[in-house]
Amino acid sequence: MKAVRLHTYDERPTVDDVPEPAVQGPYDVIVEIGGAGLCRTDLHIVEGQWASRSGVALPYTLGHENAGWVREVGGAVEHVQPGDTVILHPLATCGFCRACRAGDDVHCERSAFPGIDTDGGMAELLRTSARSVVRLAPGTQPADVAALADAGLTAYHAVKKAVPLLPPGSTCVVVGAGGLGHIGVQCLRALTATSIVVLDANEAALELARGWGADETVLADGSHVASVLEMTDGQGAEVVLDFVGERGAERDAWQMTRRAGSHFVIGYGGTIAVEAIDVISTERNVVGNLVGTYNELAELMVLAERGQVTLHTRSYPLDAVNDAMDDLDAGRLQGRGILVPARSA
Amino acid sequence: MKAVRLHTYDERPTVDDVPEPAVQGPYDVIVEIGGAGLCRTDLHIVEGQWASRSGVALPYTLGHENAGWVREVGGAVEHVQPGDTVILHPLATCGFCRACRAGDDVHCERSAFPGIDTDGGMAELLRTSARSVVRLAPGTQPADVAALADAGLTAYHAVKKAVPLLPPGSTCVVVGAGGLGHIGVQCLRALTATSIVVLDANEAALELARGWGADETVLADGSHVASVLEMTDGQGAEVVLDFVGERGAERDAWQMTRRAGSHFVIGYGGTIAVEAIDVISTERNVVGNLVGTYNELAELMVLAERGQVTLHTRSYPLDAVNDAMDDLDAGRLQGRGILVPARSA
Amino acid sequence: MKAVRLHTYDERPTVDDVPEPAVQGPYDVIVEIGGAGLCRTDLHIVEGQWASRSGVALPYTLGHENAGWVREVGGAVEHVQPGDTVILHPLATCGFCRACRAGDDVHCERSAFPGIDTDGGMAELLRTSARSVVRLAPGTQPADVAALADAGLTAYHAVKKAVPLLPPGSTCVVVGAGGLGHIGVQCLRALTATSIVVLDANEAALELARGWGADETVLADGSHVASVLEMTDGQGAEVVLDFVGERGAERDAWQMTRRAGSHFVIGYGGTIAVEAIDVISTERNVVGNLVGTYNELAELMVLAERGQVTLHTRSYPLDAVNDAMDDLDAGRLQGRGILVPARSA
Amino acid sequence: MKAVRLHTYDERPTVDDVPEPAVQGPYDVIVEIGGAGLCRTDLHIVEGQWASRSGVALPYTLGHENAGWVREVGGAVEHVQPGDTVILHPLATCGFCRACRAGDDVHCERSAFPGIDTDGGMAELLRTSARSVVRLAPGTQPADVAALADAGLTAYHAVKKAVPLLPPGSTCVVVGAGGLGHIGVQCLRALTATSIVVLDANEAALELARGWGADETVLADGSHVASVLEMTDGQGAEVVLDFVGERGAERDAWQMTRRAGSHFVIGYGGTIAVEAIDVISTERNVVGNLVGTYNELAELMVLAERGQVTLHTRSYPLDAVNDAMDDLDAGRLQGRGILVPARSA
Repeated sequence: MKAVRLHTYDERPTVDDVPEPAVQGPYDVIVEIGGAGLCRTDLHIVEGQWASRSGVALPYTLGHENAGWVREVGGAVEHVQPGDTVILHPLATCGFCRACRAGDDVHCERSAFPGIDTDGGMAELLRTSARSVVRLAPGTQPADVAALADAGLTAYHAVKKAVPLLPPGSTCVVVGAGGLGHIGVQCLRALTATSIVVLDANEAALELARGWGADETVLADGSHVASVLEMTDGQGAEVVLDFVGERGAERDAWQMTRRAGSHFVIGYGGTIAVEAIDVISTERNVVGNLVGTYNELAELMVLAERGQVTLHTRSYPLDAVNDAMDDLDAGRLQGRGILVPARSA
Repeated sequence: MKAVRLHTYDERPTVDDVPEPAVQGPYDVIVEIGGAGLCRTDLHIVEGQWASRSGVALPYTLGHENAGWVREVGGAVEHVQPGDTVILHPLATCGFCRACRAGDDVHCERSAFPGIDTDGGMAELLRTSARSVVRLAPGTQPADVAALADAGLTAYHAVKKAVPLLPPGSTCVVVGAGGLGHIGVQCLRALTATSIVVLDANEAALELARGWGADETVLADGSHVASVLEMTDGQGAEVVLDFVGERGAERDAWQMTRRAGSHFVIGYGGTIAVEAIDVISTERNVVGNLVGTYNELAELMVLAERGQVTLHTRSYPLDAVNDAMDDLDAGRLQGRGILVPARSA
Repeated sequence: MKAVRLHTYDERPTVDDVPEPAVQGPYDVIVEIGGAGLCRTDLHIVEGQWASRSGVALPYTLGHENAGWVREVGGAVEHVQPGDTVILHPLATCGFCRACRAGDDVHCERSAFPGIDTDGGMAELLRTSARSVVRLAPGTQPADVAALADAGLTAYHAVKKAVPLLPPGSTCVVVGAGGLGHIGVQCLRALTATSIVVLDANEAALELARGWGADETVLADGSHVASVLEMTDGQGAEVVLDFVGERGAERDAWQMTRRAGSHFVIGYGGTIAVEAIDVISTERNVVGNLVGTYNELAELMVLAERGQVTLHTRSYPLDAVNDAMDDLDAGRLQGRGILVPARSA
Repeated sequence: MKAVRLHTYDERPTVDDVPEPAVQGPYDVIVEIGGAGLCRTDLHIVEGQWASRSGVALPYTLGHENAGWVREVGGAVEHVQPGDTVILHPLATCGFCRACRAGDDVHCERSAFPGIDTDGGMAELLRTSARSVVRLAPGTQPADVAALADAGLTAYHAVKKAVPLLPPGSTCVVVGAGGLGHIGVQCLRALTATSIVVLDANEAALELARGWGADETVLADGSHVASVLEMTDGQGAEVVLDFVGERGAERDAWQMTRRAGSHFVIGYGGTIAVEAIDVISTERNVVGNLVGTYNELAELMVLAERGQVTLHTRSYPLDAVNDAMDDLDAGRLQGRGILVPARSA
């Protein structure tokens, strides 16, 4: 089968013919990929930024945001069967550790991460675990929803943690209306009546944000922190969801957070630096956010099925992976890029 | 009456004769002071560190940690009466704002802070609000409990927020077994079965900590982070309560916090600096902690009455305030220093 | 001024001329009534059902659901001033007890309840406490929102408690789409993406419910429990909000609640009777619900200002109170009846 | 091997020779039983009360409270190995359903319950799932802890749910200081500083309860509800844990629950019957409680290892099962009866 293989860091991946994966263990599931999302993290992987963190042996197959159809299942698998349309939770978790049992599978003690530390989904077929498979309504097109598996799930997870902090009358600032932020705004709109203020340097993104349910938009032009403080009687917002996390956003996010409020870190690249006296005298929090759990992915798929979360995507043939990467890198890619193997197109 | 007055920053306060405070509003309460705690913050006030933050006009009376007996009440006060033994919540709050009504009076929008931004309790009498007064069992000696009003309440507040994160089998690291930390350890012991690991640079303090209920103690000698990681299978603790917050403790605290765990900032002086990628990839939190609420002070007094929290204190006559400050500054003061007006001694 | 006075149980109230209330205490507020909601509880009061519970001395003024404009305030009142448009929290609470300080003022230990145990708002003027007054946007018409003060607040309170139990993919059954239920459905829609199933014996009410955001409606025709179980794979709903509470609804509600789910009791009249073995073997809960807190009323008013909760009301002059009561009793009153004093009309 | 087999309802079980269970699936675990607790539910099973609920085919092996040593594991099992000392979570859960993934495995959609609906642990060997096995400290004696697997876990689960409702200053009433109640009191003492009031008809049990940490004890002599109300200023307790659930205890429990409080149903046999107007006007809750989760069992074992929960047990040889049942039925059995196979004795 065809697969996007990374052979050497800092060189382009190639589309190779590789052996098809086969069921090995009782809970293995082979998925025919219908769509594999492309993400800035893929660019970073190619650049070698994840080499020491993932420890993966090259060559391997990229793709950590996947959806498709079940082709084959191991002998002990009962909850899905061949032919089912599925989206894949990004982690293959153990199901036995305290975290898995506590509803916190993201912190599984022995998880694998296809596309990061083992073969991923930019391929015709992917082998994963039965624990990763979320069954979808039969007519769903995998390429339409694949981007929810990672980008969407991360945004949903942060929003879900923020919901109890956001009663009517509160304010939530969303920093960055891009790939994750635009899903975050829709999730906030679906699950709260908070006043959503969206901040972005791009006026077109703000225009879109209003359509997704933002109450206010603010152009990130240097006076945006002051604007948000003015909108909130000088207090700041109960929650700031920072989907950017670098180039000053991480500093602005803290400054826009009110007393007893929470600054959610989602994007990354920068450094959070706050004086302890500021932390304690205002009792503000810095909240880390990773991807969501399996159950959260199932919940997000319900929002998608209800039409409350929609995605902007652009499809590429699997063979065109490097075109897609170039477009992403050059800022030419509006919405999420989705690679679609030929037989699924 | 006599009162400890600060006339000029960076000069010693003096014990002056000043007019007695009188009931002015319907909810005013005049308290005869039985004990006023002395705190490192008082040293910082004298040094001028709080000048711009508090905006207080000099001269004024120090003392933000007070207990005594009610002498007189305003016309609308019903829940206490003259003669009642009381401890004072450090803030005089409004009772009308959203925070006060939400059980979060620490974040009252219009509070006063006796001893910080208005006349405090290092005096024979203090005027406060009926909202600040917690009634105690009749026989309680104010000088014995005064230190719970601020130091104790801060420690209790942090512990109470941490309790849901600390089921049996978890670990809580307490950084600093001093004035706040020794109360924190006792509160943890009263409210959880977590494994308590206490960290201090002073072996004597660690010895005491074992008596208060610490399961393990670690001398802060440079290898302490490694020791804590070793005790926790390399993972770190679910919660780290940092009562120091400076001189590297704030950095160590983060490093001893496990995935999905929380670093509670209580002490201050340093800067929390963490890379966003570390925050998100481990989903750790930095949690701010201010003093506790009025209800929390009432809860803490129950722990004290049950004998589950005890204090180490040393009394000084009110006139000896500068001796007490010198002892505190020079590290000669074991436990909390309590100023006792002559007529209450 | 004119006021609706109840002189004798089981006799019609009369509209009398009575002295105007005056400010007596420092936190008193005199409100010019713009609208006073009429409620089935008012009929029950006239019938004497509340005589022993409220212990009120006759004659007194009815009306426990009130909105209007501030006319005069006591000397210590700072957060509202004459001319402000306001809605009144139904309870006048003390602000000092543990419940008030814990954000649970509904359980205040020393509250008064105008219209139930002291003079209410079916009058030109009402005296209440500064603690009860929620300031509204200036243009708001009191008669348009008065029904949110009690009916709306009760529905909102129950929904708010239910929200954490209702992630996407869950089901919430609303039993009864009447005065409270229609607000409950709108609040659920504003705050969750749960699947809302509305149950009513009236087809017209179900038609309306679809417009407010119900996902499914079920006619209460005897087979409705079976229908709801069928819709939920035989499991029942995570939450059942029973706004009826009598004539079998209280029994059906329990039967429609799934394992580990919660049956919220809001309406009353019947008896909840469940075998303990059923309670424990399915781990279901019965959850009591009273009116909401002051802060919840403020939140509900935000939903109203955002247009996410709207009311169906019918106005009557204050003088026509008995016509309104007759219409309510005979089932001729669509929506909530609101009494409007002549000078406010 | 030897096993306690039930052949016919309402007849005594017999100790038969049956084939040893073997590993069949990849996650099977064969446990050599070191202790199997005997429970009133076993008497009820013999009487046929569970026949229609469990649907089990006779003959089968009793025993739903088990601990021992791992003898053999299936090919995919990694977290335990032969020789490990273990206690068994009473349910064998699927690990794939929403409940299992949400940290709520008790409500697994496809669980088995050894000793109830499949062969249990009153035998030399038991086959269970790797998901059920909690590893213990090597020296632990299975017979000493087996009773924690079901009785203890049920009590711990209820207490853990109650903890957030029980701050210092609150009151928790424990109804029944027997097999579950005595563990409940110890768990409350380990995890809260609430005032624990224990109610029992047996003075000796109350004497013991004081040793486990009860603050007050009340003899259930007919005036006990009045006594508890008097102890709580006429208000009742924040939480009442009813470990009896029949013969009037279920009625008394409700009456001892204060406004906004919760009546936890744990014991069963009776019927909870409360007027809806009482439920809503006081906003009280009835809370169902089943056994705890796997993680909660692990937490409880930590309490046992710390010495904070101890059990009173009496051992019988497996062959003496009917003597043990007779003793239990006749009230001659102090503490929990534990059956110990000969080779483990």
